[in-house]
Amino acid sequence: MKTERLYNVIAKLKENGVSQMLISDPASIFYLTGKTIDPGERFFALLIKVNGDNKIFINSLFTVPEDLGADKVWFCDDNDPCEIASEFIDGDKTLGVDKNLPARFLLRLMELGSASDYKNTSVCIDTVRACKDNEEIALMREASRVNDEAMGELITRIKAGMTERELASQLKDIYASSGAYEYSFDPLVGFGECAAVGHYEAGNTVLCEGDCILIDMGCIKDGYCSDMTRTFFYKNVSDQHKKVYETVLKAQKAAESMIKPGVRFCDIDKTARDIIKQAGYGDKFNHRLGHSIGIECHEYGDVSSVNENVVKEGMIFSIEPGIYIEGDVGVRIEDLVLVTNDGVEILNHFDKELKVIG
Amino acid sequence: MKTERLYNVIAKLKENGVSQMLISDPASIFYLTGKTIDPGERFFALLIKVNGDNKIFINSLFTVPEDLGADKVWFCDDNDPCEIASEFIDGDKTLGVDKNLPARFLLRLMELGSASDYKNTSVCIDTVRACKDNEEIALMREASRVNDEAMGELITRIKAGMTERELASQLKDIYASSGAYEYSFDPLVGFGECAAVGHYEAGNTVLCEGDCILIDMGCIKDGYCSDMTRTFFYKNVSDQHKKVYETVLKAQKAAESMIKPGVRFCDIDKTARDIIKQAGYGDKFNHRLGHSIGIECHEYGDVSSVNENVVKEGMIFSIEPGIYIEGDVGVRIEDLVLVTNDGVEILNHFDKELKVIG
Repeated sequence: MKTERLYNVIAKLKENGVSQMLISDPASIFYLTGKTIDPGERFFALLIKVNGDNKIFINSLFTVPEDLGADKVWFCDDNDPCEIASEFIDGDKTLGVDKNLPARFLLRLMELGSASDYKNTSVCIDTVRACKDNEEIALMREASRVNDEAMGELITRIKAGMTERELASQLKDIYASSGAYEYSFDPLVGFGECAAVGHYEAGNTVLCEGDCILIDMGCIKDGYCSDMTRTFFYKNVSDQHKKVYETVLKAQKAAESMIKPGVRFCDIDKTARDIIKQAGYGDKFNHRLGHSIGIECHEYGDVSSVNENVVKEGMIFSIEPGIYIEGDVGVRIEDLVLVTNDGVEILNHFDKELKVIG
Repeated sequence: MKTERLYNVIAKLKENGVSQMLISDPASIFYLTGKTIDPGERFFALLIKVNGDNKIFINSLFTVPEDLGADKVWFCDDNDPCEIASEFIDGDKTLGVDKNLPARFLLRLMELGSASDYKNTSVCIDTVRACKDNEEIALMREASRVNDEAMGELITRIKAGMTERELASQLKDIYASSGAYEYSFDPLVGFGECAAVGHYEAGNTVLCEGDCILIDMGCIKDGYCSDMTRTFFYKNVSDQHKKVYETVLKAQKAAESMIKPGVRFCDIDKTARDIIKQAGYGDKFNHRLGHSIGIECHEYGDVSSVNENVVKEGMIFSIEPGIYIEGDVGVRIEDLVLVTNDGVEILNHFDKELKVIG
């Protein structure tokens, strides 16, 4: 058990007046124990109590290290795990649960009368996870270093006539050669007008002269995620596309440069959005400016117009404005940034000035 | 909307006395609409009512085809999607939800008083999904055909001194050449004693003479999953390993050959388990015999000692007995099978007799 992280979560529970919480999110369990288990449809949860009487419920199919720091309660496929967990939950008190606890477990716990009340106290762990400690910061820097390197290698492989999918498929091996064996998300590669389609993955579109090449990619290295977007142009770039690119870049840099502890997420979003609006592309930037990231690619806390929280030292999130013109072009530029004690450290170092390839 | 599938789900809701159900599982939404959306942390759900007044709640970031068969209710990141969904839920009636609805949505709906009561009615869609229709059966056959072919190609690439990870990493491209761009799960490749470790993925173990080579792999083709395991031996096989292999094979074949409509899942499990027990390896077969599969790799209904339901025409599941001897060897043999009107069709055709490679 990572003791300091656990103490921080318990402090938040106390602040919220909750004495026990069931944490089922594998990412949060990894955060607190250092151990990854993908339970699939099976029950796997950590019961945390402010009095320190913590339990971890594990199916006997899984192996876990001896030194987890919580008493292990084993069960097998023949048992009802919620019934077993109920024995350890204080029935006369509120049970906090995390945001991802599936209904099949939550409704079953309710049916069993496991607690007096149930509350989404995800914020108690999510806000702790949002401020990365030194160990995590080092891992996040490394994951982004690998991502920078992989982008450099990937663009050397861009060739006339190749499809988005052919380009994207090369990335797995590139990452693996740096010891990153998983994507943090399936790479998004969009050529030309496909780059303007929201949530587009790689398809069978062939690269043509004058196309933009939007590449949004990330790997997981030692449990931590990277995520970066660059947009290039193939062979040549029109004046109009250049204007789009320079607008996005200006917005991206302006947002990054204002980051320091105490600034509100919504104000960072507004800075980028205003620049894009002023250039006449306001309705072409149709998503939030960024998202928190760490063990998961999307974590609690987004950089959006509705998040009035302030950024704090240790937070890591993406800054990724974009302009998407249907049937024509899509440009997005994205870095991960770390909030330092008096400013910001940009975790991606891959050049982001306009680049024409091929 | 796939009308017949929807009618079947509504019939199940009526049987269970529930008039409305909120379906949030992307796999179930794909089943009913033919459209895949990965909403990440965002709300995406289909509200089905037995009176036919269906709604689909979609974040405006996503694109969906015009002809979804349910009225679309759009919202954006600034809205509270549960509040919007609540307007359409009958407040004085029970709301069925699927097993995977995350607590952040379920607890919020409860807080808003969206319905009179909340019930896990996942079984209403899960049991319908369990019996594949003709369109699905054709897709499942094709996914397994690709898997058979990929296994044939993969084993030609086995070489002395290679690691599990090096072998596993070749699979993505092999699948892609058949138009299958995703794994149904990360391939499990275990050499020698690593094949005996439960839920082991590929690591850096190097292949040595006399090792078993356990390969458990599957792809997704056109939305449907394959899943097959074969175990080979490298250069030579000891008499004891041969005995283990032949025991698993005998158990696997015996289980498959008894399958027809009306047979109980638990009895199929027992047949395989008894053969392994009689050979003296009872405690070395520590998992259920199989799992249902389709749009997801693990679906509702497992082949285990506790599932007393009978198999029905159209069901597709795995039959995968194994013997795992710590520090020595692991053997598993797995096919997918389809229950026909009077028996069984085995979807995998890759040879499963003992094979020594290299």
